[in-house]
Amino acid sequence: MTRFALTLEFDGTPFFGLQRQSHGPSVQQSVEDALHRITGERVVMHSAGRTDAGVHALGMRSHVDIDKPFDPFRLAAALNAQLRPDPVAVTHCEVVPDDWHARFSCTGRRYLYRILNRRPPLTLQRGHVWHVAQPLHADAMHRAAQSLVGRHDFTTFRSVHCQAADPVKSLDELRVERVGEEIHIHAAARSFLHHQVRSMVGCLKLVGAGTWPETRIASALAARDRNALGLNAPPHGLYFVEATYPDPREEPR
Amino acid sequence: MTRFALTLEFDGTPFFGLQRQSHGPSVQQSVEDALHRITGERVVMHSAGRTDAGVHALGMRSHVDIDKPFDPFRLAAALNAQLRPDPVAVTHCEVVPDDWHARFSCTGRRYLYRILNRRPPLTLQRGHVWHVAQPLHADAMHRAAQSLVGRHDFTTFRSVHCQAADPVKSLDELRVERVGEEIHIHAAARSFLHHQVRSMVGCLKLVGAGTWPETRIASALAARDRNALGLNAPPHGLYFVEATYPDPREEPR
Repeated sequence: MTRFALTLEFDGTPFFGLQRQSHGPSVQQSVEDALHRITGERVVMHSAGRTDAGVHALGMRSHVDIDKPFDPFRLAAALNAQLRPDPVAVTHCEVVPDDWHARFSCTGRRYLYRILNRRPPLTLQRGHVWHVAQPLHADAMHRAAQSLVGRHDFTTFRSVHCQAADPVKSLDELRVERVGEEIHIHAAARSFLHHQVRSMVGCLKLVGAGTWPETRIASALAARDRNALGLNAPPHGLYFVEATYPDPREEPR
Repeated sequence: MTRFALTLEFDGTPFFGLQRQSHGPSVQQSVEDALHRITGERVVMHSAGRTDAGVHALGMRSHVDIDKPFDPFRLAAALNAQLRPDPVAVTHCEVVPDDWHARFSCTGRRYLYRILNRRPPLTLQRGHVWHVAQPLHADAMHRAAQSLVGRHDFTTFRSVHCQAADPVKSLDELRVERVGEEIHIHAAARSFLHHQVRSMVGCLKLVGAGTWPETRIASALAARDRNALGLNAPPHGLYFVEATYPDPREEPR
């Protein structure tokens, strides 16, 4: 048996999420089915994150165990050929130690949230950004975001379906910047609660629009109550950017 | 009658081109039909460029004449509402003098061609870049491109359907740069022949892949013969970026 680490890029639009679902297509099913056609083996793919329906990935990290020997480069090429026409690409593939786990070994996850902030509707960017027509104040959003950085009980920003045992998480970075017509929100942490990024972005948007004062982010956090929350930002503006692992010798590039 | 200049952004994927076609949807038809629903008037839209099926625009410039009085800002908002769900947006609208003509007053046109140059297939960028898997040498492409800059007979790089009276054109800029996984080709001229940008990019790709020596671009130009040409680059990597006009007082912003 060999363990292969995969780096995946995908357009989340046609999927019901990364994880296998009984009620619709998933990235996991696409990759596992492609692997079955290549190897004849039924494998289970494990991934660093569990992205929702419509969420995209630029650099998801996953792993699979395969009995037959394969050259990693050829396995990636075969997977990319078999994945067509699904919008999933294996951008890197390499052999990792048997105790390397895409989810449990992961010590850092990074997301990007893209808002297209302009009055005219979307054309080329449809399904890939959240369109907000009212002008947003990126600096105010960034200042308010800083009250979320650090170790906190994020109960306010947690889905009712969240399965995490502990709502206390350390948020390493929450940076808001304007990039032309877009506002980018960069979020980094060891791990996130279910819907945490979209919940935080939904509240920051209210600050940016002037609906909420900047201080309300801190009070929403302190409330530890989902009723203190604004609406979640929609999934199609969210990108899983990268997963990081502690030991450089074991880190796939 | 008031003449309105429109700046249009559109995703060319679902269209048979910018110009009205008898055999399928066009950007022109979408805008003219939307205007008819708003004003009750049947107008003809004129545009700076004539983009092919699948070609996109970031800043196409067009004009329409309307009898009823309209505030330009409200006209843009009404158009954007009526254009849904077509992927066309009016990003700017203003009143211009009656002798301002989107096509005939235009003295500069700028295109961008995007190649995604990597082995893995496309996911998020489908329909918006040309995917070239073999490694391309951007510097070699840029050097070869410089032999096309200036005033030349561009017969080699002209569609058989080109209706221009004169194949002599002045190419002001043809710049090739690598931007991460992409190669961007920037082309600027007063005007272009039909398929000229896609023809030039198709040949430069052969240089970048090492199939053609750099010098072959100059000899293809000198041949003035379409048989000296490589394949055209596909339409979906091409973007009409902007049109410029000579008199700042008359230039819509």
